[in-house]
Amino acid sequence: MYQWKQGSLMEHGGDLSEAVERFGGPADTWLDLSTGINPYAYPLPEDLPASAWTRLPAKAAEERLATAARLAYRVPDHLGLVTAPGTQVLLSLLPLVLPEGPVAIATPTYSSHKKVWVREGREPVEVSSAYALPADARIVVLVNPNNPDGRLIDVKSLLEIARALSERGGFLVLDEAFADVMPGASLLPHLGNENVLVMRSFGKFFGLAGLRLGFLAGPQEVTARLSGLLESWSLSGPALEIGVAALRDTSWQDRMNRQLVDEMADLTLTLSRHGLSVFGGTPLYALAGLRNARDMHEALARRRIWTRIFDYAPTWIRFGLPGGPANLARLSDALADAQKEL
Amino acid sequence: MYQWKQGSLMEHGGDLSEAVERFGGPADTWLDLSTGINPYAYPLPEDLPASAWTRLPAKAAEERLATAARLAYRVPDHLGLVTAPGTQVLLSLLPLVLPEGPVAIATPTYSSHKKVWVREGREPVEVSSAYALPADARIVVLVNPNNPDGRLIDVKSLLEIARALSERGGFLVLDEAFADVMPGASLLPHLGNENVLVMRSFGKFFGLAGLRLGFLAGPQEVTARLSGLLESWSLSGPALEIGVAALRDTSWQDRMNRQLVDEMADLTLTLSRHGLSVFGGTPLYALAGLRNARDMHEALARRRIWTRIFDYAPTWIRFGLPGGPANLARLSDALADAQKEL
Repeated sequence: MYQWKQGSLMEHGGDLSEAVERFGGPADTWLDLSTGINPYAYPLPEDLPASAWTRLPAKAAEERLATAARLAYRVPDHLGLVTAPGTQVLLSLLPLVLPEGPVAIATPTYSSHKKVWVREGREPVEVSSAYALPADARIVVLVNPNNPDGRLIDVKSLLEIARALSERGGFLVLDEAFADVMPGASLLPHLGNENVLVMRSFGKFFGLAGLRLGFLAGPQEVTARLSGLLESWSLSGPALEIGVAALRDTSWQDRMNRQLVDEMADLTLTLSRHGLSVFGGTPLYALAGLRNARDMHEALARRRIWTRIFDYAPTWIRFGLPGGPANLARLSDALADAQKEL
Repeated sequence: MYQWKQGSLMEHGGDLSEAVERFGGPADTWLDLSTGINPYAYPLPEDLPASAWTRLPAKAAEERLATAARLAYRVPDHLGLVTAPGTQVLLSLLPLVLPEGPVAIATPTYSSHKKVWVREGREPVEVSSAYALPADARIVVLVNPNNPDGRLIDVKSLLEIARALSERGGFLVLDEAFADVMPGASLLPHLGNENVLVMRSFGKFFGLAGLRLGFLAGPQEVTARLSGLLESWSLSGPALEIGVAALRDTSWQDRMNRQLVDEMADLTLTLSRHGLSVFGGTPLYALAGLRNARDMHEALARRRIWTRIFDYAPTWIRFGLPGGPANLARLSDALADAQKEL
């Protein structure tokens, strides 16, 4: 059996170099189901102007993108908005711009949230639910819908948490990386003057994770500070061009949302047919339970299908959407095959 | 006459939205000479894989880029290297990772250096030369070759400054944004254990400013801290692919360096023929003196040629390379025409 490296096993999904190194390649023969990135990418414009690559991004282009993002994400006018090359750098900088005091994170969730607070010497308390937050928390980090299990916190509860934190000068950090596929879940249209920072990720729903584009909306003083730290031109010209086109394209967004729901239903059915019961997720990923998820992960990897497992939950295995009937059939065959080995 | 906005006039070159707003458009009818960005962009690959856009950037791709950058920039093995979406975010984060104490900047120079230290409440002392640094400086910021005047500091002096700073726990911040066109000027191959942070900009020499790619080399503890703040995936997939190809392509680099020197000679001659004496610059930009540079800037702008002027030096006007004989002729005609108005 494969000898796992010391330390945590997979910090993130979506990196086939690890898969190729362990189980062989080439990378383009792999079916990567290890992320929640939409396999149907927003179509790249054929006429991307050369100036998007050659020129410094113009302020006017950044403003167009911000306007498109405000509309698409329903960001109230009184809130500030920071654009960044992905939400990763935004969440990473939060410990530098938010106040001192106890930090609580509802876990299990996306691991980088804890990592960046630990890096700054803060000791985040991990709680099992947004409904069981410690009374003294000053910063609360929630992912909604949550990754990897898709659990949702209702808008009313989020507002209550936000108001309680605001009263004591605290902040709610809300990562809505997967809210595009559950638009009703977003807190953004409901925000008043609460101290809430909402992060939105462009690359997941639009299937363009390599473009690097992310947003954070919140009180002006925080977004101004973050914009200051990122300084000018942190976004590439292509990200500015493609971001505007995609965020404005509501008909693609609506059609895609329906398609993802349909395909997730097919994936869920396929998994359950092979004995994997899906108990959580969103239209972009399914979380299934299995007695020995790691063995299944490896059996699938030997068939060049890369899934996501979790060191904190040995019975969990997460599947991204395969992206069409042929890939779904390949997964189905591999699952049938793998079952014989386990 | 045009009414200038309150405050500083042009913070940076390279943004035609300002030019278009004031003097009319469309943008693609303008000749933009307001930057030091190479007008001959490194050719974009025709077969950029779709995965560069759709997938999360892989660790292996980041390592390939770092290796290519170390070779191209002659970074000694014992130094750390951070890659970032442009050097702008790197220089912006420096006040957060470098020690307290007096900051000195040799000016006039690229304005963002001062701005980011002021933003953090530090009061940088501006000195007129690297040879006149205050004895108590703990952080010294130098741009070499300097922008906009191209002045150079010799390697021996740089090492002396670096060693003096290192002895008192200070740092030399060295911005080598334009060192590609003066490879002999780079301090990188000469660095031992001095506390020096060297920034290299990809977009200027390779003419791909919209790609957003920059580097900082220095002591491991500083580069690790910066990498930590930027977190994973700050670079786009296209930046990783194109960056590696361009940094490895030494024959393009050599040919381009010869071409830029030739074209700068032509530009210098043209400017002097029209009464503008070039007194500084690099092969990517020429700095000329003129009694009323602002009037010339506006007269050229009415002819849709955008140059760079400086609020601190009303007789300075900077020209980037026009990019070929037709554009040079257009500039020459516009200069002749403009002279009649001034």
